[in-house]
Amino acid sequence: MPTISKKGNQMPESPIRKLVPYAEDAKKRGVKVYHLNIGQPDIKTPQVALDAVKNNNIETLSYARSEGSEEYRVKLSKYYKNNNINVTEDNIIVTTGGSEALFFTMGSIADADDEIIIPEPFYANYNGFATASGVTVVPVISNIDDNFALPKIEDFEKLITKKTKAILICNPGNPTGYLYSKEEIQKLKEIVLKHDLFLIADEVYREFAYDGLEHTSVLSLEGLEQNAIIVDSVSKRYSMCGARIGCIVSKNKDFIKTAVKFAQARLSPPTYALIASEAALETPQSYFDDVKAEYVERRNTLIAELEKIEGVKVAKPKGAFYCVAQLPVKDTDAFAQWLLEDFNMNNETVMVAPASGFYSTPGEGKNQIRMAYVLNKKDLIKSVEILKEALKVYKE
Amino acid sequence: MPTISKKGNQMPESPIRKLVPYAEDAKKRGVKVYHLNIGQPDIKTPQVALDAVKNNNIETLSYARSEGSEEYRVKLSKYYKNNNINVTEDNIIVTTGGSEALFFTMGSIADADDEIIIPEPFYANYNGFATASGVTVVPVISNIDDNFALPKIEDFEKLITKKTKAILICNPGNPTGYLYSKEEIQKLKEIVLKHDLFLIADEVYREFAYDGLEHTSVLSLEGLEQNAIIVDSVSKRYSMCGARIGCIVSKNKDFIKTAVKFAQARLSPPTYALIASEAALETPQSYFDDVKAEYVERRNTLIAELEKIEGVKVAKPKGAFYCVAQLPVKDTDAFAQWLLEDFNMNNETVMVAPASGFYSTPGEGKNQIRMAYVLNKKDLIKSVEILKEALKVYKE
Repeated sequence: MPTISKKGNQMPESPIRKLVPYAEDAKKRGVKVYHLNIGQPDIKTPQVALDAVKNNNIETLSYARSEGSEEYRVKLSKYYKNNNINVTEDNIIVTTGGSEALFFTMGSIADADDEIIIPEPFYANYNGFATASGVTVVPVISNIDDNFALPKIEDFEKLITKKTKAILICNPGNPTGYLYSKEEIQKLKEIVLKHDLFLIADEVYREFAYDGLEHTSVLSLEGLEQNAIIVDSVSKRYSMCGARIGCIVSKNKDFIKTAVKFAQARLSPPTYALIASEAALETPQSYFDDVKAEYVERRNTLIAELEKIEGVKVAKPKGAFYCVAQLPVKDTDAFAQWLLEDFNMNNETVMVAPASGFYSTPGEGKNQIRMAYVLNKKDLIKSVEILKEALKVYKE
Repeated sequence: MPTISKKGNQMPESPIRKLVPYAEDAKKRGVKVYHLNIGQPDIKTPQVALDAVKNNNIETLSYARSEGSEEYRVKLSKYYKNNNINVTEDNIIVTTGGSEALFFTMGSIADADDEIIIPEPFYANYNGFATASGVTVVPVISNIDDNFALPKIEDFEKLITKKTKAILICNPGNPTGYLYSKEEIQKLKEIVLKHDLFLIADEVYREFAYDGLEHTSVLSLEGLEQNAIIVDSVSKRYSMCGARIGCIVSKNKDFIKTAVKFAQARLSPPTYALIASEAALETPQSYFDDVKAEYVERRNTLIAELEKIEGVKVAKPKGAFYCVAQLPVKDTDAFAQWLLEDFNMNNETVMVAPASGFYSTPGEGKNQIRMAYVLNKKDLIKSVEILKEALKVYKE
């Protein structure tokens, strides 16, 4: 019998995936499950995007251009200019989601066994893309006590080897919700220039910056033109995760030329989703204002409620729509499963993401969970109530 | 300045890509270009698929399930059963095009420097997926004189090493149009069983089998359950290349379990395209009958016209919508460029794909071209007329 590759065996499972059957079983037993476990917002997609697809006049659903049409990339470059990121259409490659943007980026800059340094906890799928690309993730730990701020630059320095090709950040962060300050991005600039590394920034939550704070893009800093790569996506910005459109943005011509070859091999991004994404650029500012106000209220509610629970420590997120909480339990994998399998409060329970899947250092994050505040305020309050009750009765 | 990866430098360019600027220039000069160079059919997408998208009621464009919804996979399994391929929904993973299906397959079965044997000429992007996966393509040459039939099994045997993980075929073939017989698939079965290899079949042109011949799927043969992997796509079947939906089909549970992890890392296939693809399964048989009759007529026209040109040798395709022709020139890369740059007949010219890009053995296929008969009969006749005139005056 033929066998699976080592790479295939090493591919990580999604940290939530193993809980899915327990959630399904709970629902079969009539238990309502509040989903705090995934970043699938309940926010409506902008009408202008939905309408563009409904009103399409396609007769033959043809391939799109591999790197995205010139028209869409020109429009995207205007969006970036409005966000203090001065790029042209030639600096942009349209991808099938932020996922593919990351995958093309890793393939373009790193060979088998090359290393990419990532502050942890980090978006779990970075591990998957790295494994698929044969790249080694080198984690540098950040801490819940300072809300997962940028680790000290000395900590990065210690980890840099001949094999290091890039530092990858998610800003604002999934799962941390941390928004890097301009000073932090400046520090990263200095270290990548010093060591000739790429600085990859996953900026898919760019618009989700709260409390009057401004998002600082890696492409807004002078002198970083050859090093900075933005990975982006329409998924969260327009609540259209199912479109699967993202992009790569970089002023480094060699990098773009290389990434385009990966784009050509897979032919094109999905045509209907391109129509939706191009139209979404016409979304009125009021949509974003409303969404932001909604998330700020949800965040404030979630944090306030969590802080009322004894023994719970919560990082204060300044962006995105996640927060990491430390619970008074030893193993949140077991706890999250127990919540679905053995617990309910008036026939309701919650599903959370154990944080260990967001760390690549073994044993880290075992007492933490990630919660996505993608539910309405009432449901969030109810979810925390259930969590509080559960922690009271949980026996390890 | 940070540098590009070796892998990135090795990524092949599309064999047609370098001709694109010359085609654009020709159009700017007012020269009409007949495109025989790409597999983008002019056939209309089934109305039932187009309507499903236009009539969607989505308010929040959410992630789909990573491996595709159970409902769609159940329907797909019925489609396969109707095609003599007895599989269940658990044997299917829905992918973002056949491209992603191939990429997940390579990652699941091969590590860096492992080898996959492919009869050449082969679909050029196999090189891209292999390079991106770190896999080595080992070509086994097939010959225009027998219409690119399966090479002798001894030729495969000679190439099998400890690193060989699979044999990959495209059936019917792009670029050859060759349809493997049941006997040929039987021979492949014996060799993969003997050496514990996977047999990957790209069957995206399954419906395009002509002259009363039947397509033989690798999953229709008994005893091959653990070895056979089908890579499939809706692109050509329903003339919806821009959807970007495909799938992997295999009865090997370890393989499916592994490929699902790749699917999870990229979250989901595109939601709108899933709606179109699920609806497309309701396409009436008359659509396929009409399309097939159209392609047979085009093929017969193209071949008949080509055979009238002195010095041209044409393989007789029995499937798909491509044919490879040998021209009385030394270097079809130069010839194809000249057709766009320096030649026209009454302000019209043709764009063809030089075949060297479909070979991985250096120097092979230099005097061959691939033509896609995706134009109507009248345009095909005109295209060959132009080609004939061009060959008369071309000086190397």
